Amino acid sequence: MRAKRRPAVSEHAGRRASVAALLAEHRLDALLVTALPNVRYLAGFTGSNAMLLVFPDRALLFTDPRYAIQAAGQVDCPVKVSKGPIVADLAAALQRRRVRRLAFERSRISYELFDALRSHLPLKSSLEAVASWVERLRMRKSEREIALIQQSVETNSRAFDLATRHLRAGMTERDLAAEIEYRMRRLGAEKPAFDTIVASGARSALPHASPTAARIKARDLVLVDMGAMQEGYASDMTRMLYFGTPGLKARRLYHAVEEAQLAAIAAVRAGVQAGAVDKAARRVLRAAGFEHAFVHSTGHGLGLEIHEPPRLGKRESLVLEPGMVITIEPGAYLEGFGGVRIEDTVVVTANGCEVLTPTSKELRTF
Amino acid sequence: MRAKRRPAVSEHAGRRASVAALLAEHRLDALLVTALPNVRYLAGFTGSNAMLLVFPDRALLFTDPRYAIQAAGQVDCPVKVSKGPIVADLAAALQRRRVRRLAFERSRISYELFDALRSHLPLKSSLEAVASWVERLRMRKSEREIALIQQSVETNSRAFDLATRHLRAGMTERDLAAEIEYRMRRLGAEKPAFDTIVASGARSALPHASPTAARIKARDLVLVDMGAMQEGYASDMTRMLYFGTPGLKARRLYHAVEEAQLAAIAAVRAGVQAGAVDKAARRVLRAAGFEHAFVHSTGHGLGLEIHEPPRLGKRESLVLEPGMVITIEPGAYLEGFGGVRIEDTVVVTANGCEVLTPTSKELRTF
Repeated sequence: MRAKRRPAVSEHAGRRASVAALLAEHRLDALLVTALPNVRYLAGFTGSNAMLLVFPDRALLFTDPRYAIQAAGQVDCPVKVSKGPIVADLAAALQRRRVRRLAFERSRISYELFDALRSHLPLKSSLEAVASWVERLRMRKSEREIALIQQSVETNSRAFDLATRHLRAGMTERDLAAEIEYRMRRLGAEKPAFDTIVASGARSALPHASPTAARIKARDLVLVDMGAMQEGYASDMTRMLYFGTPGLKARRLYHAVEEAQLAAIAAVRAGVQAGAVDKAARRVLRAAGFEHAFVHSTGHGLGLEIHEPPRLGKRESLVLEPGMVITIEPGAYLEGFGGVRIEDTVVVTANGCEVLTPTSKELRTF
Repeated sequence: MRAKRRPAVSEHAGRRASVAALLAEHRLDALLVTALPNVRYLAGFTGSNAMLLVFPDRALLFTDPRYAIQAAGQVDCPVKVSKGPIVADLAAALQRRRVRRLAFERSRISYELFDALRSHLPLKSSLEAVASWVERLRMRKSEREIALIQQSVETNSRAFDLATRHLRAGMTERDLAAEIEYRMRRLGAEKPAFDTIVASGARSALPHASPTAARIKARDLVLVDMGAMQEGYASDMTRMLYFGTPGLKARRLYHAVEEAQLAAIAAVRAGVQAGAVDKAARRVLRAAGFEHAFVHSTGHGLGLEIHEPPRLGKRESLVLEPGMVITIEPGAYLEGFGGVRIEDTVVVTANGCEVLTPTSKELRTF
């Protein structure tokens, strides 16, 4: 058996090298990473309080005493455990390394922390706002990341299958959501990737409904939008259920959304603009007379977070690349009647995409 | 039967009047509320995207089209549904109302939004950072809020009782966490108030451990820290489990933490400084030789969020007031051996406090 060779540079160090290249390109001395998913991506730390300072040639993680043991075990760069406010230790490190131009994540830092940084910064140093540097690196997933997302997707689909086995008319939306989340956990998920949506009857027309104590009745469209978070990676799926035999209006609505979803999947391919995928879905819904019932965008990236770039909206010019993992989820919502959304998680490939979600797309009737 | 009189001013309008008084005191024209729990507190809106502009004599809620129907049903002030970026509509409203000095929540706004506001602001207008205005109002709970927290606490304790009924050695930490969260949901919670902690054996010495696939074994200390979120209000409780008969070291540790927790509860009273409650717990642990094993503060406020002011830390001078709802949760953690924490949710009263948590504090052995 061939011995596995250990890569010369760790996964995290390789990613930090990409940040170092951006620093050089923009003539900046360091990047302060404040978004926790970005800290995890660049250093492997999973705790709830940390910042990472990335220099061209090294990195330094700051956290608090609750995470001292954990950080030592997880992180491949030096760790500073701050007993007081982290910003004071951070300022000392900036001073020591003579940082003149410090980049910060403009959408991932509070005004309060920005202001504290500004007042702690060494003289003659400046703060430079940068946008989505790490998020853009995260868009293209490695094979290992795709395998983790696939695992999360499979847990999610199995949880759906197991939970809907217990389904019966008269069950509350909340109880079905509870059953779904319980199954995910039992299958190895850390938690749901977002608050599970179970919306029945006219409430299915609210695209972001929370499950209520309402009982699921015969002739209700039931929308279930669910995702798992497993080993840090998200999945996302929407499926529809129906008790009884759906009427003409529900069938037309379902059919239109299903066609739109298949058209959008068919439009996915490396080299295509994100907006073109959205347009493919919208075109089908327009032809079916449901254009105005489609009130959100067609999808979004997912990975360490449930919503990441790219966004698949109408006017998005971002070009899809192989290894991007995105959702395809058109929907149509008729106030007072109900709504339909169908959603899969897919990986962009050179010639199209691979649909990771194994769950059947037929309307599940009970 | 006497007819119920509708109050002249709604609960939310009353709270907004308190904000208006702060605006007058600081000579500011309006407060932009960006923290969602603060938006909920002041206007009743529960969606995931909104901002609230509070003027001395009125308020205006901004949200996006996904929440148009929901906002119309929940909110007692005018609602603006923004199709594009909310900040543009916000700027138009500021212009229309000739706002000169706009207050914003310094710790609850991103640098990005702050920067967008600054560039959209009418000429001659200024942005004024304010800290915790609404959070301070939220510290003293109304009777209705205390009743909601009590309901959340009871759900949480019942979920603990039901989940631990299924407990057996060999169960994984994750499966126990899944069972706990399932029970909460079935009892009416929307979700857990935070990621449930189940940490067994030496891992119980990590104050913020995530549940793993490790199996709970005989002679393991098991720390369970759990909370429910029900009708928007949090609960929080920590209890310890043990399989078998605990040895001397575990019993000493447990006893010391229990004494510390009772001493802290006995120290709670309106008029007392938050730091005095922390000191009461710390004194007991010092006498037992565990002072350095107590690595966090004694407790925190809770309500619409799981962590709110006041903080019960060593040097906190804030004076407790009747109606504040806080946790009392000293702990002691011995690396390599295990840790103990015991936590209740209590309401501050004029003469002491009322412990809301009904669960017994005896070490639960199995």
